[in-house]
Amino acid sequence: MNHDYNQEALELHRLHKGKIGLATKVPLENRDDLARAYTPGVAQVCREIARDPLLAREYTLKRNTVAIISDGSAILGLGNLGALAAIPVMEGKAAILKSFAGVDAFPICLDTQDTEEIIKAVKQIAPVFGAVNLEDIAAPRCFEIEERLRKELSIPVMHDDQWGTATVVLAGVINALKLRELTKEEVKIVVNGVGSAGVAVSRLLLAYGITDILFCDSKGIIHDGRDDLTKEKKELLSASTATPQEGTLADAMIGRHIFIGLSKPNTVTKDMVKSMAERPSIFSLANPVPEIMPEEAKEAGAFIIATGRSDYPNQLNNSLIFPGLFKGVLDNDIKQFEIGMFTKAAFALASHVKELNTENILPSMFDTELVDVIASTV
Amino acid sequence: MNHDYNQEALELHRLHKGKIGLATKVPLENRDDLARAYTPGVAQVCREIARDPLLAREYTLKRNTVAIISDGSAILGLGNLGALAAIPVMEGKAAILKSFAGVDAFPICLDTQDTEEIIKAVKQIAPVFGAVNLEDIAAPRCFEIEERLRKELSIPVMHDDQWGTATVVLAGVINALKLRELTKEEVKIVVNGVGSAGVAVSRLLLAYGITDILFCDSKGIIHDGRDDLTKEKKELLSASTATPQEGTLADAMIGRHIFIGLSKPNTVTKDMVKSMAERPSIFSLANPVPEIMPEEAKEAGAFIIATGRSDYPNQLNNSLIFPGLFKGVLDNDIKQFEIGMFTKAAFALASHVKELNTENILPSMFDTELVDVIASTV
Repeated sequence: MNHDYNQEALELHRLHKGKIGLATKVPLENRDDLARAYTPGVAQVCREIARDPLLAREYTLKRNTVAIISDGSAILGLGNLGALAAIPVMEGKAAILKSFAGVDAFPICLDTQDTEEIIKAVKQIAPVFGAVNLEDIAAPRCFEIEERLRKELSIPVMHDDQWGTATVVLAGVINALKLRELTKEEVKIVVNGVGSAGVAVSRLLLAYGITDILFCDSKGIIHDGRDDLTKEKKELLSASTATPQEGTLADAMIGRHIFIGLSKPNTVTKDMVKSMAERPSIFSLANPVPEIMPEEAKEAGAFIIATGRSDYPNQLNNSLIFPGLFKGVLDNDIKQFEIGMFTKAAFALASHVKELNTENILPSMFDTELVDVIASTV
Repeated sequence: MNHDYNQEALELHRLHKGKIGLATKVPLENRDDLARAYTPGVAQVCREIARDPLLAREYTLKRNTVAIISDGSAILGLGNLGALAAIPVMEGKAAILKSFAGVDAFPICLDTQDTEEIIKAVKQIAPVFGAVNLEDIAAPRCFEIEERLRKELSIPVMHDDQWGTATVVLAGVINALKLRELTKEEVKIVVNGVGSAGVAVSRLLLAYGITDILFCDSKGIIHDGRDDLTKEKKELLSASTATPQEGTLADAMIGRHIFIGLSKPNTVTKDMVKSMAERPSIFSLANPVPEIMPEEAKEAGAFIIATGRSDYPNQLNNSLIFPGLFKGVLDNDIKQFEIGMFTKAAFALASHVKELNTENILPSMFDTELVDVIASTV
C-alpha cells in the first residue's frame, strides 16, 4: 500500500475540522416553522413530556441517540492521553454509527478519570440519550463503571472495547471451530492479556460454552497459587475447566488449538505457534502491531490467522458489531444489554459470512445487510 | 391566524422524533476511508492533540460546537419541568444555531438542579465543546453558575436567557430612544421582574449608560428600606440614579418613558400606561401572555409596543442575537464573553434595522445578513 494514513488522517481532520456536525430535521425558514419547532408550539411538547416522561422517546432525539463516553485513559493502543486527545476516536465511532446504522451519536470526553465521578457525570447527562457506549476507558475501572451504570441507569450501557471486541472474537472462534471441525467442548484456547477486552472475550467464550481456557497476563499463566489476582481474574479462573499450573505464555500455548492475543506486540514466536495443536488458529489482536505478524504465524503452520488490521485477511473489528447492536437496542426499546445478546449477535455474525474459508472467517464491514442482521438478533 | 401551533408542534416532533441528528462530514465507504477517519490513521491525530491540546480546535468538532445546557428548572414560562421536558427547547436552540449561523450544537439536559453539581458536570463535559450556552436555569442559581463557569472554564459561557434577552432589549431601547428623540441620559425606565432576564437587562442598560431606572419585583418597588433584597437587587439599586420610595408597580410607572416587563401576564393596566410620560414605550415581554396585551397598550396611548410574540409587530426574540454571538466567539477564538460585547452587539442589531418605525424597531430574524453583522462585532 502506498498510503501514508497518518498524514492523510491529519489532512482529513484539518480540512473538515473533525468528522461530525449537526443535522437539522425540520425547516426553520419562516415564522410558522419557528412557531412549530420552537416557541410557542414547543411548550406543548415540553408539557406532554413532563406529564409522561416516556414521551421523550417519541418527541425528541433521545429515541435514536447514543452517548459515546470516554475519559481518554486508554485511547486505542496509545494509553492515557486524556479527554481532548480522545475526541477524534469518539467522533470516528459516532460517524460509523451514523454511516453504518443510521444511529445518531455524540461524543462526550470527560475531564475526569475518577470512577465515581465518571458514573455520576454519565447519569447526570443521560436524559437526552437513548443508550451509552463506553469507550477507551482503562481497566479495571471500566468494569465497575459499566456494571454500576447498567444497574443505575434506565438506558442500555455497553463498553464496546469489552463487548464489541468479545462478540467479534466469539464469531471468529465459532467459524474457526467450523473450519477446523472441532466442537466447543473439545477446543482448547489460550487467552493472553486479561485487560478490558481480554476479560470480556473470556466471559463471552465461557458463556457460549467454551470452558477449556488458559489465561495469561504479563506475569505468565494465571493459576490458583498466585496471590496477585484481581477479582476478574479469579472469576475467570474458577469458571474455566482447564487446570493451570505455574508457567509462561510459551508453556500455556503447548497443545492449544486457538491463541487469542489482546496483549502486546511481538509476544509470540514461531516456536510457540509450532508447539500448539495441529493446524492452530492465531487471533493476534494487538493493534497496530500484533503479537505475531501474520507472515510468521503462517510460516509456523497456523491454519487461520486473524488480526485487528485492515491490511491482512480476517480483520476482527468492532465496527462489525456495535452499529447493529446499538440500532437493535434503540429500535426495540431494550432496557439493558445482557450477555446473551452478545452470544446471539456473534452467532448471527458468524452465520452471515459468504464463502467461509480460512482467509474469510467473517463478513465485510461494508456488507450493507450486516447491520440489520445484527440488530434483528436483539 | 388559523394555526393550532400546539397540535402542529406535537405532530412535527412525533414525525421526526425530535429536530436534530448527526451529520457526518467524511465519507466512510471503504477501507481507505476508515483508515483515514478511524484506525489506524486517527491515532496520529490523537497523538498530535496530546502533544499540543490547542490542536483540538484544528482537528475536531470542538472548533464549531456549542453545548446547550439546561437543568430544566425554568423551561420557557412553564417552570420547573425537569431535564426530559427541557429537551425539545434545547433541540430547538441547537436547530436555530445550525440553521441561522452554521454553528453545530448539542443539547445536554442535566439530571441535577444543584448549583455545584451543575458547575462540575459542565466542566467535566467541556473538552468536546467550543462554547457553552446555559439555558432555562432558574434564578438565582443561574447567576452563580454562569459567573463560576466563566472563571473556571477556558471556553466562552453565556446564559442566553440573561444576555440574549438583555441584548435584544437594549437594541429595542436604543431604537425606541431614537424614535422618541430622547437621550440615554434623559430616559426614565421602569423594569418589572428581576429574575434572570430582568437582572441582565438592567445590568446591560446600566453598562450602556442608562441609569435612571426603577426596579420592581412581586413586592413592588425595590428600595433601600427593604430587608428582603438579594445580592443582585442590591447591586442594581446602588447602580441606579433614580430615587426609589416604597410603592407599587403602578406608583413606579408614573412619569416613566419606558416600561420593560419580564414578569407575569396581565400585571399592567391601561391606567398604568396612561400615567407614564407622554408617548411611552411598552416592552411587555412575559410570554406567551404579556404584562398587557398590545391592543390595550395601544388604546392607552403607547407609542412603541414590543412583545416576545411572533403574532404582533416588534417581536423581541433571543434568536436575533445568540446565533451571531456564538458564531462570533467561535470564529474568533474568543476566550470569554464580556458585557461590552453585548452592548456592541445591541448597537449593531439596532443599527441594522431597515425602515425604522414604531412597528419595526428591530430587524427580522430571517434577515440573512444579521448573523454576520452580529458575529463581526465580537
